[in-house]
Amino acid sequence: MRTEISELGKFGLMERLNGAAKTTAGARAAGASGDDGALLSSALLLEGVDFDLTYFPLRHLGYKAVAVGVGGVLAAGGVPVAVRVALGVSAKLSVEDLDELWAGVRLACGELGAAVALGDVRASVTGLAISVSVAGRAVLTAGSTAVAGRAVLEAKECVRKSDAGAGIGRSGARENDLICITRDLGAAYLGLHLLEREKRALAGIAGAAGFSEAARPKFEGYEYLLERQLKPRARKDIVDALAAEGVVPTAMAEISDGLAGDLMQICRASEVGARVYLDRLPIARESYALAEELHIDPVVAAMNGGDDHELLFTVPLEMRERVAGLGVEIVGHITAPGTGAALVTPDGSDIPLRSQGFND
Amino acid sequence: MRTEISELGKFGLMERLNGAAKTTAGARAAGASGDDGALLSSALLLEGVDFDLTYFPLRHLGYKAVAVGVGGVLAAGGVPVAVRVALGVSAKLSVEDLDELWAGVRLACGELGAAVALGDVRASVTGLAISVSVAGRAVLTAGSTAVAGRAVLEAKECVRKSDAGAGIGRSGARENDLICITRDLGAAYLGLHLLEREKRALAGIAGAAGFSEAARPKFEGYEYLLERQLKPRARKDIVDALAAEGVVPTAMAEISDGLAGDLMQICRASEVGARVYLDRLPIARESYALAEELHIDPVVAAMNGGDDHELLFTVPLEMRERVAGLGVEIVGHITAPGTGAALVTPDGSDIPLRSQGFND
Repeated sequence: MRTEISELGKFGLMERLNGAAKTTAGARAAGASGDDGALLSSALLLEGVDFDLTYFPLRHLGYKAVAVGVGGVLAAGGVPVAVRVALGVSAKLSVEDLDELWAGVRLACGELGAAVALGDVRASVTGLAISVSVAGRAVLTAGSTAVAGRAVLEAKECVRKSDAGAGIGRSGARENDLICITRDLGAAYLGLHLLEREKRALAGIAGAAGFSEAARPKFEGYEYLLERQLKPRARKDIVDALAAEGVVPTAMAEISDGLAGDLMQICRASEVGARVYLDRLPIARESYALAEELHIDPVVAAMNGGDDHELLFTVPLEMRERVAGLGVEIVGHITAPGTGAALVTPDGSDIPLRSQGFND
Repeated sequence: MRTEISELGKFGLMERLNGAAKTTAGARAAGASGDDGALLSSALLLEGVDFDLTYFPLRHLGYKAVAVGVGGVLAAGGVPVAVRVALGVSAKLSVEDLDELWAGVRLACGELGAAVALGDVRASVTGLAISVSVAGRAVLTAGSTAVAGRAVLEAKECVRKSDAGAGIGRSGARENDLICITRDLGAAYLGLHLLEREKRALAGIAGAAGFSEAARPKFEGYEYLLERQLKPRARKDIVDALAAEGVVPTAMAEISDGLAGDLMQICRASEVGARVYLDRLPIARESYALAEELHIDPVVAAMNGGDDHELLFTVPLEMRERVAGLGVEIVGHITAPGTGAALVTPDGSDIPLRSQGFND
């Protein structure tokens, strides 16, 4: 018997291997917590899948690999403490290339206050592979002593179903909780499209395959989109701000596969529904402009584009004022079990959410 | 300017990127420790480099990936607490294949008493990639409370230069310390050669390229070598036994690149020399037999073969009795700074050690 992986999709496969969603979809899967509030997250970035070295500067790639790697720790309400990198390196890269990559890794770790070490480097026959492992310390937990400013008791009230010490999971969202995201969405996905267009145009010029100089894409005006794709910033500032405000989310996730997929994961793990309002979706001006130019639906880019590496979290309704002060966007709310997850259009109709498949 | 990575080699590159050997070659590089005795290690296994799916059963591969991944935590004197796996999967693998792989991962984690989660799975265009991240807890440290049976004070006496709480490093070996290894060496390397020979023979038969049925290799008698290559066991038992005996090594490393390379790393970080006695090198009977058949020097297999995933550690001379009771092999001793690292033949001559290059 042979089942194609694309039949199950990424989330289906992870549920199958991790076992029952209830026990693993939360902090354990997101951060694989140990004891003593220790959190663990990781990322694997593969050439030809996650990045293309024809347009991805190695310094930025090192920076991004760390940002992607720490996402699981941040989403569990922790801060990264130590980062360990393993590299598979093809012969086309030189020592100086790796110096560049490593400068980006060190820059990102320095900004995050995390120790960093190259744990292993090996020859690769299949392009550059970057493995990032991150150990973190939980700061947003019921028993946390890192909560400053506000009473720890208040924070405790917000924790309803998370395992103390194991970080925030995906299973604690409840009806009426607010759905918050930490930045506009879709920009990284559109930045990738811009880079791909540039690559095709340059290939055309180099190969004299019919592209004229005039067809060469312009980056002017789209710097923001390139930065979101090439140098995403890990949102440790949000975890720090939540801790300072004494706000412990009921559920949290990193938006790596698009808002739709990650929100659906929270809904499944928490056994609730969700409504996201289309007119509340933050989409940058540059995203609208490029989406129009490329004939891409900016809402699809925001909901399914992926690669945002921002945070998605839910908090009880009574936390509205407090989270508003953090500069996060409230895009919807959690609904009763069985109501499904949907995007609500301005005229009030529901569009059911769908997540990306394995190869999308 | 372009410097080829092979010019520096693996260890040279790691020193370059990790900075001064003194600060990073020890526990930080080996285990990238956080605070509170938290340890972090990782492994990246790439198809075509670290394994060949034509003869590597997926269940064994999952088991081995964990064994390799936890090596850094064990070498820092810790035990694994949580394991997180990320996979890059090519389309040739099915869901059932991944079930097999995962069964091996779970088996290994179960034996080690570590929680496990699949953190991410993504499409790969370049074959299977397995990233394993491991969070561990230090048990062999000066301030450890896990040391049972013997007085903690005794253990403290053995710790001379390691950072308390940061795990055992590579920089604490001192003149006259005993060099211990936890099992015979070279078997995994010879097992790989046996599998490669089988693969070539089968390809010859399949392609009618001149190999006869009679030329087909026999595995009989070499099961031990196959097991060492295909299903290496993580030596948590050694860390547990050292803790129970109250023995804290002065330096420790995982033997992943052959005894020579890893011992030279300890010598460099500790600024000492070393002598390993050829007639003390444990080499299994099966290793001698296959080495003779394949015209491979069994000593080279032991010193430079790699993939053993056993532990190498140094302890003060006065610990001889205590470590002997653990069933480890004492193969030599640490010598004064500036004396170099060498293999001593039975007639008393020194053969300087050399480590593998990047692509060997």
